[in-house]
Amino acid sequence: MATTFDTVDIIRTKRDGGELSGAEIDWVIDAYTNGGVGDEQMAALAMAIFLNGMTTEETSRWTRAMISSGERLDFSGLGKPTTDKHSTGGVGDKITLPLAPLVASFGVAVPQLSGRGLGHTGGTLDKLEAIPGWQADISTERMMEILRDPGCIVCAAGTGLAPADRKLYALRDITGTVDSIPLIASSIMSKKIAEGTSALVLDVKVGDGAFMKDLDTAHELARTMVELGRAADVDTRALLTDMSTPLGRTVGNALEVRESLEVLAGGGPADVVELTVELAREMLDAAGVRDADVEAALTDGRAMDTWRKMIRAQGGDPDAELPTAAHTHVVTADRDGVLERLDALPVGVASWRLGAGRARKEDSVQAGAGVEIHVAPGDAVTAGQKLFTLHTDTPERFDRAIESLNGGYSLAPAGSDVPARDSAILDRIN
Amino acid sequence: MATTFDTVDIIRTKRDGGELSGAEIDWVIDAYTNGGVGDEQMAALAMAIFLNGMTTEETSRWTRAMISSGERLDFSGLGKPTTDKHSTGGVGDKITLPLAPLVASFGVAVPQLSGRGLGHTGGTLDKLEAIPGWQADISTERMMEILRDPGCIVCAAGTGLAPADRKLYALRDITGTVDSIPLIASSIMSKKIAEGTSALVLDVKVGDGAFMKDLDTAHELARTMVELGRAADVDTRALLTDMSTPLGRTVGNALEVRESLEVLAGGGPADVVELTVELAREMLDAAGVRDADVEAALTDGRAMDTWRKMIRAQGGDPDAELPTAAHTHVVTADRDGVLERLDALPVGVASWRLGAGRARKEDSVQAGAGVEIHVAPGDAVTAGQKLFTLHTDTPERFDRAIESLNGGYSLAPAGSDVPARDSAILDRIN
Repeated sequence: MATTFDTVDIIRTKRDGGELSGAEIDWVIDAYTNGGVGDEQMAALAMAIFLNGMTTEETSRWTRAMISSGERLDFSGLGKPTTDKHSTGGVGDKITLPLAPLVASFGVAVPQLSGRGLGHTGGTLDKLEAIPGWQADISTERMMEILRDPGCIVCAAGTGLAPADRKLYALRDITGTVDSIPLIASSIMSKKIAEGTSALVLDVKVGDGAFMKDLDTAHELARTMVELGRAADVDTRALLTDMSTPLGRTVGNALEVRESLEVLAGGGPADVVELTVELAREMLDAAGVRDADVEAALTDGRAMDTWRKMIRAQGGDPDAELPTAAHTHVVTADRDGVLERLDALPVGVASWRLGAGRARKEDSVQAGAGVEIHVAPGDAVTAGQKLFTLHTDTPERFDRAIESLNGGYSLAPAGSDVPARDSAILDRIN
Repeated sequence: MATTFDTVDIIRTKRDGGELSGAEIDWVIDAYTNGGVGDEQMAALAMAIFLNGMTTEETSRWTRAMISSGERLDFSGLGKPTTDKHSTGGVGDKITLPLAPLVASFGVAVPQLSGRGLGHTGGTLDKLEAIPGWQADISTERMMEILRDPGCIVCAAGTGLAPADRKLYALRDITGTVDSIPLIASSIMSKKIAEGTSALVLDVKVGDGAFMKDLDTAHELARTMVELGRAADVDTRALLTDMSTPLGRTVGNALEVRESLEVLAGGGPADVVELTVELAREMLDAAGVRDADVEAALTDGRAMDTWRKMIRAQGGDPDAELPTAAHTHVVTADRDGVLERLDALPVGVASWRLGAGRARKEDSVQAGAGVEIHVAPGDAVTAGQKLFTLHTDTPERFDRAIESLNGGYSLAPAGSDVPARDSAILDRIN
């Protein structure tokens, strides 16, 4: 790069509420990736961005600079459209599992590069790793083969994609600079654009169990990401979906695979089916496949066939018994009533405490751990009725999981009129 | 320390505009000093403090925590009052040199722990190091002896004083978090309080050549520091003094020593004498010596005697020839006129470019380099009259120094009415 800049000048500009030039952004991201800008300098800049924001133009350039910090995949040789989905993360969000094969069964390629979970929301790779033999690490050559047939893959993003984001994300995590819309949007979109998909549907979760706690902020994040995608010629849409209560009836790795198999077999909880179907329609539409009968592909076995091929292509055995936890504990209703609320966050934390998630990157997860949910808001319950089944290999964890769960639901008096959730989809941006 | 805190929680609290508890501040300063809080985390916290501020209580606790990070000198065994001065730094500010011996000549101890210069304002130690043989590094035992007789010392602050501030200052320098009132005030006052003086006069410079560009900000800084001092039982006052134009007629190391000797001999430029006398009165008053005739001590040789003893006590030869630069260049007036303005900053930068200052901590300085100023705002000049003499050992530096100087003064048409500066003292807080 011809021009060099003074890092402190760049920090000061943002600190004082100014706008960074494109050249400054390119330089600072490149220099940070290569060590010329120190972690302490990027931390100060990230905090200044957190507090003073970035303009649309700055965020767009920041995203492009992070993409340019690494390689970019190119699926143009596949001879078919590519479409992808990204969820901002929620409790019980296993949608990728049925969704990728469902969409691929319509002849569209789904390159779903995913991550592992950290904190109370589970990671898609952690879930699939519950399947005996299944491998998350796939070479780019093999990825291309799998995207030709069966047409979908869920694998770990290579370290070559947006390395600047990888470095910056780790830094933001320890410096209190995670929850910034321009930084979140550029982080997500730099990875997704570098992945080379030509269409993208974003599932932006809203509610206590999600990153975005309220609809306005979620809207802003969704719009920012949609703009970033379109600026990079990726047909990008977003759904805003409810994460005030867990998605489906299971939270945990093998537990969520089991529920996904129900959906692929034409059954499963209504909210998981609804979201899978809606996201599939959007993904297909963005990829140029209009009016696809996605429900049919779930009921007639096409999606399940694709799933089985996908699992096999990544070394997994789709017929293998899924792991189960060594210990279970049932939580029952202490009185008659109606389930008034069931909060996503405490259920996510309970599952995490049972061993389904990790506290630090280097931790391993328990395949069988998690929470089965037997009731949904609006359901009448009777004293002694099963509400939750907790699963873990380490029964000393039950107490703290139950503690979290207890703060997460309440029973209204029997006969109360508590409406069930009508739809998990709150809004769409396209 | 019994309690531990989560660093990210502390950063988030300040980021979101909250107030840190005393225990959080104690913990974060201690952990930062000992490596438990990383540079990148402190950089994010410093930026959050920069942008969201600190309350009086937070700043006071932050200062105390930095003092507690190291040792604290105790001068109570001296059997006489101690009084000190701190200047926030200006161009041509050599006041400490005549001031310390002047005050000490009244039987009060002056423990003047100083720093080296970085950037366009010179450092007191750099100036004194122009004196052959003079040493800045003095052991604490020897310091006590010198404070008994001759009663004043100007030496390097030991690394044991406020090590948290030392570490934090270096970090702020590279992360764009220097110019924050609570951070500046706590940095200065933690060092001054740890030095153990019982009285302190602050010389807060205001103007383009100073840290504080306007009177309001300077007021705020001065008030904050006076409060911090008093909270630590140090009788603290402040003068706000003008730094729009250089102080005195010389800028540079040996050049400023020479001018200081003029003041100690009862002469010298009026503004340097005024400020020396006013600061001496305040320092003596704060130390309990009322109505001292400080002018007399300058004219009758008492201050000069104390100076000579002080220089000898630190290994210097007060009779040695001061170094001069190998090359000089004279800037003359290109027409008749009246000197309308002479800005401190461009003169400081010119001196720095000539070699009197350093760009990086590890650079050395030229003892003879600097700028002699032959005119003051309000003076009539004729075409060809000497305005400045530039001094350097490295004549290739003249061009860039002249470039800086040329932007720093202007001539009004001959006969214009340009008022001379009446007093350098703008306000006082006591």
